Amino acid sequence: MREVAIIGAGETKYGEHWEKSLRDLAVEAGLKAIEDSNIYAEDIQAIFGGNMSAGSFVGQDHVGALIADFAGLAETKIPAMRVEAACASGAAALHAGYLAVASGMYDLVLVGGVEKMTDLPGNMATDILAGAADREWEVFLGATFPALGAMMARRYMHEYGLKIEQLALLPVIAHEHGSRNPDAHLRNKITVDTVLNAPMVADPLTIMHCSPVSDGAAAVVLAPAELAKKYTDAPIKISASAVANDYISLHSRPSLTTQVATVEAGKRAYKMANKEPKDIDFVELHDAFSIIALEALEDLGFAKKGEGIKLAEEGELNLGGKLPYNPSGGLKAKGHPVGATGVGQVVEIVKQLRNEAEGRQVDGAEVALAHNVGGTATTTVVHILEVM
Amino acid sequence: MREVAIIGAGETKYGEHWEKSLRDLAVEAGLKAIEDSNIYAEDIQAIFGGNMSAGSFVGQDHVGALIADFAGLAETKIPAMRVEAACASGAAALHAGYLAVASGMYDLVLVGGVEKMTDLPGNMATDILAGAADREWEVFLGATFPALGAMMARRYMHEYGLKIEQLALLPVIAHEHGSRNPDAHLRNKITVDTVLNAPMVADPLTIMHCSPVSDGAAAVVLAPAELAKKYTDAPIKISASAVANDYISLHSRPSLTTQVATVEAGKRAYKMANKEPKDIDFVELHDAFSIIALEALEDLGFAKKGEGIKLAEEGELNLGGKLPYNPSGGLKAKGHPVGATGVGQVVEIVKQLRNEAEGRQVDGAEVALAHNVGGTATTTVVHILEVM
Repeated sequence: MREVAIIGAGETKYGEHWEKSLRDLAVEAGLKAIEDSNIYAEDIQAIFGGNMSAGSFVGQDHVGALIADFAGLAETKIPAMRVEAACASGAAALHAGYLAVASGMYDLVLVGGVEKMTDLPGNMATDILAGAADREWEVFLGATFPALGAMMARRYMHEYGLKIEQLALLPVIAHEHGSRNPDAHLRNKITVDTVLNAPMVADPLTIMHCSPVSDGAAAVVLAPAELAKKYTDAPIKISASAVANDYISLHSRPSLTTQVATVEAGKRAYKMANKEPKDIDFVELHDAFSIIALEALEDLGFAKKGEGIKLAEEGELNLGGKLPYNPSGGLKAKGHPVGATGVGQVVEIVKQLRNEAEGRQVDGAEVALAHNVGGTATTTVVHILEVM
Repeated sequence: MREVAIIGAGETKYGEHWEKSLRDLAVEAGLKAIEDSNIYAEDIQAIFGGNMSAGSFVGQDHVGALIADFAGLAETKIPAMRVEAACASGAAALHAGYLAVASGMYDLVLVGGVEKMTDLPGNMATDILAGAADREWEVFLGATFPALGAMMARRYMHEYGLKIEQLALLPVIAHEHGSRNPDAHLRNKITVDTVLNAPMVADPLTIMHCSPVSDGAAAVVLAPAELAKKYTDAPIKISASAVANDYISLHSRPSLTTQVATVEAGKRAYKMANKEPKDIDFVELHDAFSIIALEALEDLGFAKKGEGIKLAEEGELNLGGKLPYNPSGGLKAKGHPVGATGVGQVVEIVKQLRNEAEGRQVDGAEVALAHNVGGTATTTVVHILEVM
């Protein structure tokens, strides 16, 4: 299996893009990644695009083909396809693209992620996103994703005595970091009080525990590691790309407080990269709801079960701490265009590992981990990246 | 790059499955393929599932995870993801699965395809399927897929003097073959008169030129070719897996009568397999509309441009002819559950190459080609399979 590296990365601003359609966003991110790779668009040999629900959000399937065309690549008859794993679609597409390069069949592969979510009125986005859960056995019975997240939080609070004002530290840190990211959707700093006093979505989760509905896109260009230095002085190696799936429904699982898919994807990734949690310099964790990220801190081995929040309380998750958390602002502040998120996390890591994350740089970072989740950690994808 | 073989295959009956849901169909096909492979479900290391629009058809995204769970594989935390390329989703998933095994990361990979289309009233399926075209530049202006197919047919008739009663030969052959396939959706034999006198959908295409809206699922198990004989006496080698994409919209292309994506995917596949058109013993072509398959016969090198229909007129496309066409019944008669179709074509080829296609066997077949299209041949995927 060939080793694989990222030679270029790009992303749009995240937010409500009334003036840009799905294709505009995807093409913008893709061309930025291509330009960043010092190649021509025609050099790309295949496209794997992460997208959760363009069919429902904007009536458009066949997204891979659409993007390839509007990126100007139809003349090359480039292979293009979409990969979907709910909110982990972006990282799943990266896994597929990784395999494509690792196999030897393709050298230069574009992996993108995109979602255009804000074109719909009212709470239609919430219903579409509920398609990541079991429609027949969870959603028809009233579950929404905030409700499922709230159940996870309630159970965690019950089992480990966590207080909601403790959990509120995670969105506070995310917004602190997001305020430094010019591409972030939400750049306001907040306090624990802001979180506690925000409108309730699903008790105990106020809206400040929940990521926003965002438009956006992100892309990276992959190449065989052995060829990467031909294109860039600062390639980033994908040391691990690991996927694991759990039961789709919360009610089928033995625990609401341990994400078994995260534990397993983490184990596979650490083994593949020959790394341990202590080797990781910073993390981009999937904080669609703050509780998901808190559990993941523990499930990925950064803290004992029930003790993850101590890292926040001790300041270790801030820039300058032992394990800076979501320097991009995370899903909470940077935004969560679902199909783009997994790729966006990796774009942030590329910027950080190249020492180009101005204003939010993790000093001396050489190894980082991205954790992207579909559903209630039904699908978890973990990537470990490092400086070559 | 490792060579890849199919060690087992399975599919559901195709048709209107009021009593079975998306997950039932997918799991049925998957478990048949696993049983056929002489392995345990737990031996599977990853799942790539082709599906076009479950989000729109049944409100369910995250289909890979759902299927993995209901197939009983959640305990193994198996990686699972969905691949989408409109009606070529099945073959695109096979391409992704092929890369996964070729890479060396996974040995035993399940590739499935599924669509549950008949749960919606009226013409909603037609609108969902239109998501394979450019929603903003084709569909908003009134195009449906039958209308786009009709434009292709009209132009072909204009350029090459084809008569509609000649084109009608293709559905007649498809139904003749489908009548012999116990799993086919439509098993009635038809005549040219049946086709000509059927209700008009989009002039000149009557409903008998159009594939039905079907439910169904298909699956194959992949293994490294070097290990395949450990599992089965009759592995089928994937000699080529090639994908090409054209402009998404008909109006962007220089020709309506040549599918450039099919030409290109064909070229890539022949080169990869080191084969020529004359080496192919039979074909499974994408006859969503008869005109698509007619053009493909020519674009894949089986006839000169404008002369493909002669093969039908001379009886060469029937069983016993030089190039039996869609012995399964094709999309027209076997059925077209869009996300399943590309995998279903390959399941038919596996049965034929193993000499197990009772009642419709292509005698002595050793090499076959599958042609699966998304949109108006926007995406074309070509697989060449052969006896090992």
